[in-house]
Amino acid sequence: MNENPVIGVFDSGFGGLTVLRALLSRIPHARYEFLGDTARLPYGSKSRRTIARYAAESAQYLVRERGAEYLVIACNTASALALDAIQEAVPVPVLGVIEPGAASARAASQSGDVLVIATDATVQSHAYAAACRAQGLRALEKACPLLVPLVEEGWTQHPVTEEVFRIYLDELLRQSAEEGMSPDTLVLGCTHYPLLRPLIAKAVPAGMRVIDSAEATADAAMRLFAQRCNGCAAPSDQISCFATDSVEKFERLGSRFLERPTGKVHLVELDG
Amino acid sequence: MNENPVIGVFDSGFGGLTVLRALLSRIPHARYEFLGDTARLPYGSKSRRTIARYAAESAQYLVRERGAEYLVIACNTASALALDAIQEAVPVPVLGVIEPGAASARAASQSGDVLVIATDATVQSHAYAAACRAQGLRALEKACPLLVPLVEEGWTQHPVTEEVFRIYLDELLRQSAEEGMSPDTLVLGCTHYPLLRPLIAKAVPAGMRVIDSAEATADAAMRLFAQRCNGCAAPSDQISCFATDSVEKFERLGSRFLERPTGKVHLVELDG
Repeated sequence: MNENPVIGVFDSGFGGLTVLRALLSRIPHARYEFLGDTARLPYGSKSRRTIARYAAESAQYLVRERGAEYLVIACNTASALALDAIQEAVPVPVLGVIEPGAASARAASQSGDVLVIATDATVQSHAYAAACRAQGLRALEKACPLLVPLVEEGWTQHPVTEEVFRIYLDELLRQSAEEGMSPDTLVLGCTHYPLLRPLIAKAVPAGMRVIDSAEATADAAMRLFAQRCNGCAAPSDQISCFATDSVEKFERLGSRFLERPTGKVHLVELDG
Repeated sequence: MNENPVIGVFDSGFGGLTVLRALLSRIPHARYEFLGDTARLPYGSKSRRTIARYAAESAQYLVRERGAEYLVIACNTASALALDAIQEAVPVPVLGVIEPGAASARAASQSGDVLVIATDATVQSHAYAAACRAQGLRALEKACPLLVPLVEEGWTQHPVTEEVFRIYLDELLRQSAEEGMSPDTLVLGCTHYPLLRPLIAKAVPAGMRVIDSAEATADAAMRLFAQRCNGCAAPSDQISCFATDSVEKFERLGSRFLERPTGKVHLVELDG
C-alpha cells in the first residue's frame, strides 16, 4: 500500500474551496491542507509584485509547515500573476488553474473563439488569453468585479445577480461581435463563479459551453495522481483548513463553496 | 503668520478621499498627507487585531515619515475598531469619523432613533450604536457589503444600485418597525457612500435626514483648526497621496471621490 499523498491547496480566500471540492471527488485518497490568505484578500485588485510575494509566502507555509508534496494554486489571480514566483519558492510540483481551464476550453470549443470572465487582476494579466492562444484559441476576457461580492452576499440566484450578469454578458457578446468572433465557450476564470453556474448556464446563448476552471484543474490533478493512488486508503483526517484572518467568515461561508462543513479553521500568521 | 498645519489623513483605500475633499473645503490652508493602505484593503472584512496592526503602522508612517501633526482617520472600519490602537501608536491628536457622525445625527434627529449603514466590520463592532447611545440616541445598524463594489464599478446612478439599496433599506426599515423605532435620520457610515448620496436621498422616506460622516468629521476638524489657521497662506503643494499598492487604480478612481485629480500617487511599503 502506498502512502497517501499530501496535496496543498492555496487560495487568497475561500473561493478555492470549489477547487478542493472538485479534487475531493476525483482524488478521494489524498490528504488536503488548504490555506486561505484571508488577511490579505482580495488579490484581484493588487499588483503583480505584491501578489507574488503573498502567494510565495503562502506556498512556503503549506510545504514547510504542513508537509504538502504537491501544490494546487486554487486562485486564478495567483495562477495568472505568480505561478513562476511560487514555483521558484518551493521544491514541489505546482499546478495552477489557468492552463487546465484553457485546455478544457480547447476540448469544448468548435469555433476556436472563447470568452473568459474573471477578476480585474486576472484579466489585466491576460494570462487566459495567452494560455488560450497556446491552445490555438482566440479569447476575449472581461473583468466582472461585482460577481464575487454578490456570491459572498449569498445572492447566487437573486434577480439582481441575474441582471448584473446579463449586463456583463451583453457587453462581452457585443465586443466579441465587433471583433468578428463567434464564441461558443465561456470560461469561468474565478473560483467564486461556480456557485453562479446555474444562473450563468440559463443566461448564456443556447449551445454555449460553460467551462469551470476548478473542475478542469481537478481533472488535470487526477491524471497526475491516478497511478500513485492505486491501493491508498482514504485518510481519516482528510481536510485541514488554515486562514490568515477572518476564521469565522471562512467557516460560515466556506461550507457553501465546499458543499460540506469546513471543520474548524485554524488561524496562522504569515507576515510581521 | 502661522505655520500651515500638516494634517495626515488615513484610509484603508481611497474612499477616505471623500473626507479629504470635505477637509479641503473647510480647512483650505492646511497641507494634507493622505495614505491609502491599498495593499491590505479592504479592512471591512478583517478582524480587530489585524485592522489595529495595519492602521497603527499606517498612522506611524504619516507621523514619522510625512510629518503629520494631526491625524484624521478617514476610514469607518479603522475608526470603529482601531482608534485606541492608533492613539497609542502616535504622539499626535487623532480624530476618527464615528464620534462626529454620531454627534451630527444627534443634531439632526427629532425622534432620537437613527439608522446606520456601513461595512460588515464596522457594524459588527457596534461602534456607531455605542457612539449614538452616548449621544442619547437609539441606533439600528446594517451592513451593506454590495455598495462599495457598486461604487467602485462606477454604478453610482445605476438601476441595479437603486435596486440593491432599496433591498437593504427595506430590510432596515422593516427591522426598525419590529423594534418599535421611529427613525428619522440615516447615517452613511462608510466613506464610499457619499458618492451614492443623490441615489440614497431619492430612496429614503420623505423627511428622513441623511448624515454624511465625512462632512461631520471635517466640521469637527474645522472647529479644531479655526483659530490656528488665522493668517495662514494656502500652501502650494497642498495634497500628497501615498498608497501601499494599486497606485494606478487609486489615481483612476480617486479623482471621483476627491472631485479633483489626485496628482501622482506615490507607492510606499509598510510591511516586510
